[in-house]
Amino acid sequence: MVTINDIAARLGVSKSTVSKGLNNATDISEEMRKKILETAVELGYTNKRLLNREKKLCIIIENMDYNTPNQFGHDILLGFKQMAEPDGWTVDVVPMDKDFQRNIPYSVFMMQNGYRGGFILGFSLIDPWMSEFKSCKIPTVLYDNYISTNPRVASVGCDSQDGFDQAVKHLVKLGHEKIGLISGPLESYIVKARYNAYINALSKFNLELNDNYIGLGYYISDSTRDNVQRMYELGVTAIICSHDIRAISAITECMDKGIRIPEDMSIIGFDDLPMTAYTEPPLTTVRQDRTALGKAGYYAMSCLQNELPICSILLRAPLVVRSSTGPARTA
Amino acid sequence: MVTINDIAARLGVSKSTVSKGLNNATDISEEMRKKILETAVELGYTNKRLLNREKKLCIIIENMDYNTPNQFGHDILLGFKQMAEPDGWTVDVVPMDKDFQRNIPYSVFMMQNGYRGGFILGFSLIDPWMSEFKSCKIPTVLYDNYISTNPRVASVGCDSQDGFDQAVKHLVKLGHEKIGLISGPLESYIVKARYNAYINALSKFNLELNDNYIGLGYYISDSTRDNVQRMYELGVTAIICSHDIRAISAITECMDKGIRIPEDMSIIGFDDLPMTAYTEPPLTTVRQDRTALGKAGYYAMSCLQNELPICSILLRAPLVVRSSTGPARTA
Repeated sequence: MVTINDIAARLGVSKSTVSKGLNNATDISEEMRKKILETAVELGYTNKRLLNREKKLCIIIENMDYNTPNQFGHDILLGFKQMAEPDGWTVDVVPMDKDFQRNIPYSVFMMQNGYRGGFILGFSLIDPWMSEFKSCKIPTVLYDNYISTNPRVASVGCDSQDGFDQAVKHLVKLGHEKIGLISGPLESYIVKARYNAYINALSKFNLELNDNYIGLGYYISDSTRDNVQRMYELGVTAIICSHDIRAISAITECMDKGIRIPEDMSIIGFDDLPMTAYTEPPLTTVRQDRTALGKAGYYAMSCLQNELPICSILLRAPLVVRSSTGPARTA
Repeated sequence: MVTINDIAARLGVSKSTVSKGLNNATDISEEMRKKILETAVELGYTNKRLLNREKKLCIIIENMDYNTPNQFGHDILLGFKQMAEPDGWTVDVVPMDKDFQRNIPYSVFMMQNGYRGGFILGFSLIDPWMSEFKSCKIPTVLYDNYISTNPRVASVGCDSQDGFDQAVKHLVKLGHEKIGLISGPLESYIVKARYNAYINALSKFNLELNDNYIGLGYYISDSTRDNVQRMYELGVTAIICSHDIRAISAITECMDKGIRIPEDMSIIGFDDLPMTAYTEPPLTTVRQDRTALGKAGYYAMSCLQNELPICSILLRAPLVVRSSTGPARTA
């Protein structure tokens, strides 16, 4: 059991200085306070006073809008709070950026604020705290990211395989045999997962795997411009897109080139963003149920709080069939 | 809302006959009772009286011993009950076989007994109820099995990828480059998952993928006899086995052939069966924490009871390092 004395001994300062640092007193330097907190984390000190005061969790959110009900993050936050608050937790929402992460380690930030767990939304592999998640001790749940091995960190998301299986099954029923993929580059966890799900789903249904039916690219409109017509000319009759936003771009591209949807080309997205019900034609897409994602995030947090070392909870990803898919065109 | 009248109308019998059937009265034929229950399930009738009477779940168990603390199923049951009973559930344990399944549909069995959810252990792909799980309406959690699409059915298990990543990482640190796999045939969900995890883990560490380093076979001792020495002669210095029981067989085979463990060959198992701590040498293996599996099973059940359509909860699978692994032999 690590005490204030251990921290004081390690830093060669008095016990009262350590106490001031841990309790945010104003009469010590910011530099010393930071050093004390970092040492406390390093030694595994538990600030009982802070922790006993309140049951507090935080949702740390980056690259994701959440203020109004039609924004992606909104319902995730809602779902999480709907489960957490009746269980007696206070949930803070903390908007995040990379500069903030560079200035303070995650564990220090969490301890300083008395948070017993964090739900992390919208981080990418280049976020500075991502490497800290590999070894952090505080229960942490990541949406659409995966950390290997650490029993205190779990992932939550929709099962990409479940989603692609349903999308491909739907297309096969409609007579499609050559099915393409338009996706971002394979640089994030979730894009890789969806890419693998596409490959696996095609294999399951014994469809042709062909590199020419795959278009990966960072810039959305460039990549649809480069790929949609090319695939069309190769005889591809349906394209699944890794995200709705790419599917919408593919619809625009088809319109520009006179490729009719769904008569000449079926298009499927992934996410079910609110706008996809209102595209022309309305988009068939794999649904991420955002409120359910928030709730699953809390279930994952609850497992970790109970020292149950789960690594993931994945949700079903049902297909929402609208008008952008139809029978395959005949050659 | 389906009523007793609807069932009576469908079958052309009186309301009181239906009532008798639903309440296990003895003065109607067994055949009629079964017909009534099956129709009730088909129409989606909810037997409120039964359901309100008790909060009952069942654990249905096949091909798995569970009566004494060192048997695989014992701690899974314990973990599930440890979570479920404080929440007010009664949990029945139901031993199962294929004949029983052939005689009564799963949904009928569950409704007849007033079970609001089932935790299914030890089923294989040929169990008759497996096909019913694809569409059943009752919350059902499967250990080490996966059902596509159905939002009422979830999977629980250890993350094979997490386990193989750690096993391969451990071997790479010890200087191993040619790593083999001995496994059962790719006929069950979990054996396929472990096979894929082996392939992925080798790729992650840029190790040679070679079909000659893989030995699949139904009969355990035949398959180790066919593969261990063969792999040894090909320069394989470590073998990961899909199950402890195959690893133990591989140890025996090495002993017979004068291949020293770990000097000539490192062996890793999967499961952490109690006996693996006492093999000679004690086995390095990937651990399935059985109590945690039971608890995760209850978390999954709890999600489904709350209509949160999860498809899986996976646990960490930590590596337990004992003496069957050591530095790679030099050529």
